Parts: sequence; C-alpha cells; structure tokens
Amino acid sequence: MSFFIDDTHDAALQSWLASANDPATEFPIQNLPLGRFRTSVSAPWRLGTAIGDQIVDLQLAGLVKSQDANRLIGSDLATRQSLRRGLSEGLRAGSAEQAGFEAALVPQSTVELGLPCYIGDYTDFYTSLHHATTIGKQFRPDNPLLPNYKWVPIGYHGRASSICASGHGFHRPNGQTKAPDADAPKLGPCARLDYELELGIVVGRANAMGDAVAMQQAQDHVFGLALFNDWSARDIQGWEYQPLGPFLSKNFASTLSPWIVTMEALAPYHLSFTRPADDPQPLPYLDSPENRAGGAMDIELEVWLQTGKMRADGHAGERLSCSNFKDAYWSVAQLIAHHTVNGCNLASGDLLGSGTLSGPLAEQGGSMMELSGGGKKPIGLANGESRTWLQDGDSIILRGYCQRQGFRRIGFGECRGTVLPARSPA
Amino acid sequence: MSFFIDDTHDAALQSWLASANDPATEFPIQNLPLGRFRTSVSAPWRLGTAIGDQIVDLQLAGLVKSQDANRLIGSDLATRQSLRRGLSEGLRAGSAEQAGFEAALVPQSTVELGLPCYIGDYTDFYTSLHHATTIGKQFRPDNPLLPNYKWVPIGYHGRASSICASGHGFHRPNGQTKAPDADAPKLGPCARLDYELELGIVVGRANAMGDAVAMQQAQDHVFGLALFNDWSARDIQGWEYQPLGPFLSKNFASTLSPWIVTMEALAPYHLSFTRPADDPQPLPYLDSPENRAGGAMDIELEVWLQTGKMRADGHAGERLSCSNFKDAYWSVAQLIAHHTVNGCNLASGDLLGSGTLSGPLAEQGGSMMELSGGGKKPIGLANGESRTWLQDGDSIILRGYCQRQGFRRIGFGECRGTVLPARSPA
Repeated sequence: MSFFIDDTHDAALQSWLASANDPATEFPIQNLPLGRFRTSVSAPWRLGTAIGDQIVDLQLAGLVKSQDANRLIGSDLATRQSLRRGLSEGLRAGSAEQAGFEAALVPQSTVELGLPCYIGDYTDFYTSLHHATTIGKQFRPDNPLLPNYKWVPIGYHGRASSICASGHGFHRPNGQTKAPDADAPKLGPCARLDYELELGIVVGRANAMGDAVAMQQAQDHVFGLALFNDWSARDIQGWEYQPLGPFLSKNFASTLSPWIVTMEALAPYHLSFTRPADDPQPLPYLDSPENRAGGAMDIELEVWLQTGKMRADGHAGERLSCSNFKDAYWSVAQLIAHHTVNGCNLASGDLLGSGTLSGPLAEQGGSMMELSGGGKKPIGLANGESRTWLQDGDSIILRGYCQRQGFRRIGFGECRGTVLPARSPA
Repeated sequence: MSFFIDDTHDAALQSWLASANDPATEFPIQNLPLGRFRTSVSAPWRLGTAIGDQIVDLQLAGLVKSQDANRLIGSDLATRQSLRRGLSEGLRAGSAEQAGFEAALVPQSTVELGLPCYIGDYTDFYTSLHHATTIGKQFRPDNPLLPNYKWVPIGYHGRASSICASGHGFHRPNGQTKAPDADAPKLGPCARLDYELELGIVVGRANAMGDAVAMQQAQDHVFGLALFNDWSARDIQGWEYQPLGPFLSKNFASTLSPWIVTMEALAPYHLSFTRPADDPQPLPYLDSPENRAGGAMDIELEVWLQTGKMRADGHAGERLSCSNFKDAYWSVAQLIAHHTVNGCNLASGDLLGSGTLSGPLAEQGGSMMELSGGGKKPIGLANGESRTWLQDGDSIILRGYCQRQGFRRIGFGECRGTVLPARSPA
C-alpha cells in the first residue's frame, strides 16, 4: 500500500488554465481524474481528464495510444504514475507543452460524459456499520446486526448491465410486493423507491483466477473511486430478498459518476484505520500495518434532492444528508483481499460498491429509508414539499470531495439520476 | 412461445457423416448445438456446430460471416432458424453441399472447446422446489421453504468472470468459516466443497433497459441451454450468506459445458406445465396459455463422479444421481419474464442458471449436500471409496439428454470440472 505524495499534490501548484485555479473548481491540477466523453451520439468514446471546466483529450495530448479505458485502468503502477506526471507537468503554469495541451482541450459543457469504462462484474459491499444496523433494524427488528458483520466484509454480486452513466433517467420499476396483511403478493410500480449513497471502487490491475491478493498489494489493485448510487426498491426488496439476497429490487438501475478520482490523487487523504477496542480485530488476511496506519479515507459525501417542482422553479436542489467514507467499517484494501481470498478473479474496470455510506448520526443516513425511518417520518423540504420515498421527477445528486489542511480541495463531480414514471407492465 | 417442429427434427433424417448416425452419439443431425473451438492455444476461437464426432466450422461452411458468438446468439428468430436449416440441409445424406461441408469439418478430438460465448452478466435462479426444501432444512431447520418461494422465481446475481469452460480444474477455495461452538471464525481451505447440477440458460435476443419481456415473447429471448455446475463451498456459505446472499462460497469457479443446445433443437421436448392444485397459481405476469401448455422441458440430467483413484484405475466414473428439468417449479419463460419485469436489461450471451435441479426423490438430489444429508451420511462408491464432500482430485461430470418416442435422442455433451488442492493463503 503506497501513499505516495509528491509535487503533483503541491497545494501551490497552478495551471496555465485559469478555470483550474478557480477555488470553486472540483478539478484543479492536483486532481486529474479519468473519464470518457464524446462530442456527439455517433462519435466514439474518448479518454479524457477533467481540468477546471475543460477536458484534456488524452490521445490528442499524446498521453495514450488507444481509447481502451479498461486497458489503461489495468496498467501497472509506473504507467499510472507516469500518466499523472505527464498531465501535471503539461498543465502547469509555465509548461513548455502548453500549446500542445491547449490543442487537446475540449470544454466540458460541449460533450456527453459516459461510463468511465466497461464494467464486467459489479459487486456491492456493505461497509457501513451504521447503515447495516439502521436498515437491519427495519428488516429484522430483533436481529439488526448479524453475528458475521464484524468478521466478514459482507458483499454480494450486482447487475453490471444496468449501471448507467450520470445524467440518465430510469423508469420506476414494477415488481412483486406483498403487504404484511395481504394473502397474496401483487405486481405494481414500486411504492418505496430509494437511493443509496455509495462510492464505486474501480479495480485496476487484474488478478488471475486462483490468485488471492494479499493485503499488502490490495490497494495497488485499485485504480480509483467514483460516486455511485445503488437505487433500491425497498418494498420489492422486503418480499424477495430471502434467502439469496436482493435481486430485482436493485438491478433495474444504478448510476456511476463520470470521473474516476485516482488512488494517486487520493494519496493525501488516508487516515488511520482502527477498530473500537471491544470489537473483534480483523483476521490476519484482512489486516496489515499499512491498513491500520492509513486504510481509512477522508472523503466527504453529500446527497442532494432536486424535485420536479424545484427543477421547474430553477432551484438546484436541497441537501438531504452528508457523511464521510472514513466511517466505513471495512477499508478498500480489505474489500479486495476478501473478494479474492478464495481465488476469485477481478478484472480491470470491475466495480465494487462500498455499500451505503451512512455516518454515526441519524441525520447522516445514506438512504431515504434511514432518513425517513422506513417511510414513517416525512422529510420536510425548504420549499414546503416533503418526501418519505422518491417521487417521479425527483433527481438525486451525489457529491464528494476531499480536503485537508495544506492541500488543495479536490472533488468527484456529480452523480445524477432522475426517476421517470413507471411503464405499464408488459 | 413457439414449439416449431419441422423436418430438421425428423427421426429418420440421416447424415452423410457416419458418426452422426451412430445411435450412441449425442450430436446427431437433429441436434446441431453451437459452441466455440480453437486448434491451438494461440489460435482465435471459432464458431462451430457439433455433429457426430466432428465440428462444422460455421464460417468455412459459409454459414456465418463473423466469429462473434454473442452477435449470432442475439440474432432474430429467422436468422437462427435459417442457420439450423442450412446446417441440416448441408449435413443430410445426399446433400449437394456435402463436399463444401466436408472441407469445413474439424475432428472434436483435435480441438480445445471454450466457453460458447462471452458472458456479460450471470444470474442464478433457484427453480427446484425439492432442492430449496431439502437445503433450506439444513440452513434453517424450522423454516425450510420461505413464504415467497411459490410466488417469486427466486434469483440472485453471480460472478461472470470465474465461469470456466468444461475440462478445467480450479483450486479448492480458502475462506472464512465458523464452527457453531467456536468463539471466532478462521481462514482455511473449504472443508465442505460441493457441486450443483444446473442448466445454463443462454439469453438470445436482448431487451433494452426499461423494456419488460412479456411471457408470450419470453422464450424467444432464449437462445438455448447448456449444462452448468455451480460449485459451492457450503461451510463458507453458511457463515457468510446472511443477509445479502451467497458470495465467496460461489464465485471461485463455475463450469459451463461447451455446446449450447438451441431452443429450436429442444422444440420436441416441451411438456405441459401445471401447478399442484393446492399451490398458488402464478401471478398474471408469470402466466400464459403457452406456458401452461408447454413451459416444462423434458431434459434428463445426470451427475457423475470420477475420483482421483478412479482416474488412475482407468475408470470413467460412477453416477451419483439423476433428475429431470421437467420437475422445476419455474419455467424458462417465467425466469425471463420475472428478470425483466422491472426493466432490467438482459444482453445476448448472458447466462441464467436454473439453480440446482433436484428431483422429488431423495436420491435425486442435485448436490452432494442433499445426497449426504449435509455431510452426515457418506455416499458409498462401487470401488470402496466414499464421499460426504468433494475431495482434491475429484472430477464432477454433468450430462444431459432429451428423448421422446418418435424422435432421435439428442445430448448436451459433458460439463466436467476437477478439484485441485487449495493454495496457501496470500
């Protein structure tokens, strides 16, 4: 595990591009996230890095030869560090390469941002003890936190095909639900539609089937992080999830933000990672001195709601909650080590969801189910509206950023998705 | 739903290729399954159809233009039927195309058979009421069959990356397990390694995200079936699976047979599909007259074990059990309709596992966990060995075939995988 801080992280570093030096930008020269964009719906996706309000076209800037995102994401540490250095040096104020980089800039406002890579397999974890406890209480009042939680980084496989790029809408899902007092279930539109505030962990270097990744190497198998919304149909989930886990309650849509903030960019934001003294310590395959020293990551997260009425009123939205990835019970390295301990092969570009990132306080719930107490306490909004669950026309916008004394604040951009009305069953 | 029986199914139809007329062959001219083969590890995969002891190279025979299996699998019904007709007519005794087809033949014994297509997403269902009841009893003695079982075709997402072609070995997985009387779990090699006898349902025509597939069209979204072994680590499963379902207990390896027997070939083997009168009838979105008339499929299935000792002794193996897909509680069409009712998009080549196909009798268990009563009753073998769980060196071979009065018997080939010793944890 390497927390390599070098001059690319220097807070004083300025770019010749004015918008990158704007204190409000999420994409200063210290960030340099990877994504894909296209200039029209018929154009192929191209690799780019966000800088201020622009994108550097990586091939035009001479930094990559192919447009294969997954290949770049799977490249070795030296290649990744060299790409970061090339971007940082080319974009710096006074760079001799300024003219070449200027010719490779595309304004963000003129392009469509896609999924940052092809996602072969998607796994969702459950790393927030606070979320697991609160939501566990609603599904199993007598037994909220199961005995395995503090030993096993609980995870399950999700659906890769329905992961959408930020900005897309999706139809409210139809599904089977059963009221507690009903004799039989019925088919109909989800009545308890929810979001989940997550981080998406993008696998970098692949491991071959049969090869476990040890804790010491685990973080080097991660390319970076993005924002991720694991939309959830709670009424469908409650009826279907036993005994094999959530299925149709989750696989109708998930939304990933367009920019992968690299592990290199995140190097300054690691924190020590320790368990409460009364909790079991991790088994040796989930433990390392490096993980204890820096396994936690200080990433501030926010959920914003823009209702249809707010949109009509020109209102950007209202913040519903905020939390921080540092409160997760399991670290990124632990997720990789656990996922591969049995020899399971992770491919470059595979996505691991963190699970809903709720904080320790009730107002830090990362889902509406938590904030509304399972639909019992309406959430009042400043414009007089209220919500217990998502309504048609609602957009959820996730945001994230890292800040630390002595470093430049970097952001994740936004992860936005909108609820469209249910379609008639087939 | 179409059960289109035509002259390609005629039992009297003979091929000019003698091995296709051998009564023992699984690949007579009435079968014509799709697969991929290569002639060396450095050669690209090529599309082929098994016939007798040979393979027709589909491009050399002029039947396809590209080697993209997923594109072929996703083609419309007319294209699929025309491919079947082209193969049937070219391989018939007396065909004018005999010379061209002969030049496109490759002996099966000289090639490596791969996965028949790229698998984007893999979903595993749970369609055997008998399996769900027996195994449910072992995990939840008081509550074997959950209240949703007879209403919801229970399914969950599995790992696509670790699905292997038949013939491969895999290492016994390491994982966390906890003995009931232990204070803490431990990491170590799985001690309760098992197989699961399944059919793999290969999605044909894709549906767009948001578009549910109605029962009437559901079967036309299936390209065909293959044999599938969902290897399972029962001790890891017992400790990890609550509340989000099986994960590392399943994703270390699964094995798919090389030949997809097409829905066209399977047309004669449909049976009426009815529920016991006391059981709830399917909700309307899971019901259709065609499904009641022919939703069941008469596919005989067998599990064979070849231990390391048997292999050394030149012994092909011993049959552990047999069952039939007609005993499944949910039909193929119901799985497609359910999976897409919420708008989930299935891609061409995606795989749906049927779930373990156990029959109504105790000896028809489709897993060792069922046959050995959870490891309590050793299964005696004719050579004096016995098993409660799989041992290193054991191969499991799945077989399947269809037979019906007046039709030629067709087979699925074999689905074979071998247990290799555990590796040291990383």
